[in-house]
Amino acid sequence: MSTDVTSSAGLQDLLSPRVVRSTVLPFIQQQVSELESTLSRVCRYHLGFIDEHGDPSSGGDGKLTRASLMMAVADGVGLRPEDVRSQAAAVELLHNATLLHDDIADSDELRRGRPAAWKVFGVSLAIHAGNALQALGLRLVVDDSGPGHNEIAGSFTEALGLVHAGQARELTIRPDSAGLAVYEHMVMEKASALLEWSLGTPAIRAGKPEKDLAALREAGRHLGIALQISNDVEDIWGDPAVTGKPIRGDITRRNLTFPVLAALSADNPPGDHLGRLWQADNTTAEHLQTLADLIDEAGGRKTAERLSRGHLDSAVENLGRAGLSPTATAELTTLFDRIVNRAV
Amino acid sequence: MSTDVTSSAGLQDLLSPRVVRSTVLPFIQQQVSELESTLSRVCRYHLGFIDEHGDPSSGGDGKLTRASLMMAVADGVGLRPEDVRSQAAAVELLHNATLLHDDIADSDELRRGRPAAWKVFGVSLAIHAGNALQALGLRLVVDDSGPGHNEIAGSFTEALGLVHAGQARELTIRPDSAGLAVYEHMVMEKASALLEWSLGTPAIRAGKPEKDLAALREAGRHLGIALQISNDVEDIWGDPAVTGKPIRGDITRRNLTFPVLAALSADNPPGDHLGRLWQADNTTAEHLQTLADLIDEAGGRKTAERLSRGHLDSAVENLGRAGLSPTATAELTTLFDRIVNRAV
Repeated sequence: MSTDVTSSAGLQDLLSPRVVRSTVLPFIQQQVSELESTLSRVCRYHLGFIDEHGDPSSGGDGKLTRASLMMAVADGVGLRPEDVRSQAAAVELLHNATLLHDDIADSDELRRGRPAAWKVFGVSLAIHAGNALQALGLRLVVDDSGPGHNEIAGSFTEALGLVHAGQARELTIRPDSAGLAVYEHMVMEKASALLEWSLGTPAIRAGKPEKDLAALREAGRHLGIALQISNDVEDIWGDPAVTGKPIRGDITRRNLTFPVLAALSADNPPGDHLGRLWQADNTTAEHLQTLADLIDEAGGRKTAERLSRGHLDSAVENLGRAGLSPTATAELTTLFDRIVNRAV
Repeated sequence: MSTDVTSSAGLQDLLSPRVVRSTVLPFIQQQVSELESTLSRVCRYHLGFIDEHGDPSSGGDGKLTRASLMMAVADGVGLRPEDVRSQAAAVELLHNATLLHDDIADSDELRRGRPAAWKVFGVSLAIHAGNALQALGLRLVVDDSGPGHNEIAGSFTEALGLVHAGQARELTIRPDSAGLAVYEHMVMEKASALLEWSLGTPAIRAGKPEKDLAALREAGRHLGIALQISNDVEDIWGDPAVTGKPIRGDITRRNLTFPVLAALSADNPPGDHLGRLWQADNTTAEHLQTLADLIDEAGGRKTAERLSRGHLDSAVENLGRAGLSPTATAELTTLFDRIVNRAV
């Protein structure tokens, strides 16, 4: 149920990801290299800067989606990349801190097509490394003294609290009628909070009116839901070469992702059949295929894809009301689409 | 190698711990009760507010040492408890976040005489709960807008980074001549950073001169070293009924704590003997007793106790230069002594 993305292909023809590569990425590399040396090594491995032997690596790094969104909005409100460089770095560090810890919590052995950090360095160091990335991100935001810094820092710690709440709430989703409501609540915390912050922060810095800020946050909220549901679909029917993770990790662990919840609540024979098979302690590829087929037949896939598309449309709609420059609006519209639809 | 303390007895005749119980503790309880419900339950268990069945519990909570120190300094610089209530709550939340994660990282099954949170709720929830406590503490500090708030928040995130660095550095200590230097570096990060912040923050809030602030921070630095070395001694020769942890956890795991490093570098026959036995994969009580005896005979215990006393003296000496009221100085002197010497 990760909201991470793998390949850096597919965004490089856009401006904001190139700005991130030239402005934010070197800054992150420098900051992380100044951490205590063991932590630095674990973090640089997780971020894809080095391989497990400590040699430089160009693979495995993420798309830096959140930083790209932030840079695109910055451009759209007339800021220079440097004006939100610390914040763009911080949101990527925070996001990666949650991934480091998530992989331990979920016993996920693969991340971006490479062994997860805890498999290489052990649980202990991976826990500390996640904390170190989180602390570093917070320090960058708290130490910043540009316009709106109090509001930016306050909303950052609030978003962080929401992400942790969402991670815990995810564990409480049950396969009953209330499950979909809990799922929706979880997604807004776990997936949307940092995206809302990424889109809203440049507007705060630029002193934009409250209605523009509200539209950007609303766009982030819808984008998070669209992305999470799209990732849920991808886990079941996507290509592991694209996701960088083993296929069907979610249904192997019987995570109640959106397509499953939609199928279970569909009130039709395949949904009922799925309900009977769901709890069986069977993780063979054949059984997972049966579950996937039943989810599809019950309509879970179609409902998920439709809902994801609807939220993507709402995200783009809100973007159009945010008072950004037309160029930035076009860039963000393309970014939104690529982020959500990379593989579904 | 924990820097936590167990029993709340032994401080209650002092003013500042009573202020903490009446002002800070209810605030922490309220804040933690507002977390997502599963996280809230894990955190309230870890903090000793409830037992594993969710029933109210009065046992297992810590001494709230850091908040007490902060309240004593606040009194000594003429502040009201409410003026640093959020900060006092934050430092306890942060400290407890590190304990939650430390217990997972060290596979420690016992905390304050009760099963550690990860043993009761699982690794996954305990990781998220530690993150939630950390995020909550940060939010309290960042949302505060009283005098000196930028400097207070900045030094808090800096301290947090140091704590994580120290936790990782601890894993890199080797039984060689460089080991003691690495140990010292580690203690200043892991044990002293939050104590320095606790003592310094009220002085920043009250606008005290830089020299007073420097003296308080220096006191915190020495107090941290004294406390850590004292805890190291306690792990080997202390009473598990007082520590709330299994005896000799550190030497069972072959952690290179100060008495061990001092013994290994003593250049005498028991030290050499210890060096030969140290790596043996033997955790029987008898073997641990042999190791403990060799550490003692090599002078490791005496050196540790002398050094801990020396740093406690330096802490008190710096306290005397901090420009606090005589009543507060007396209270803090007693607090320092009780914190370091509760069981050695």
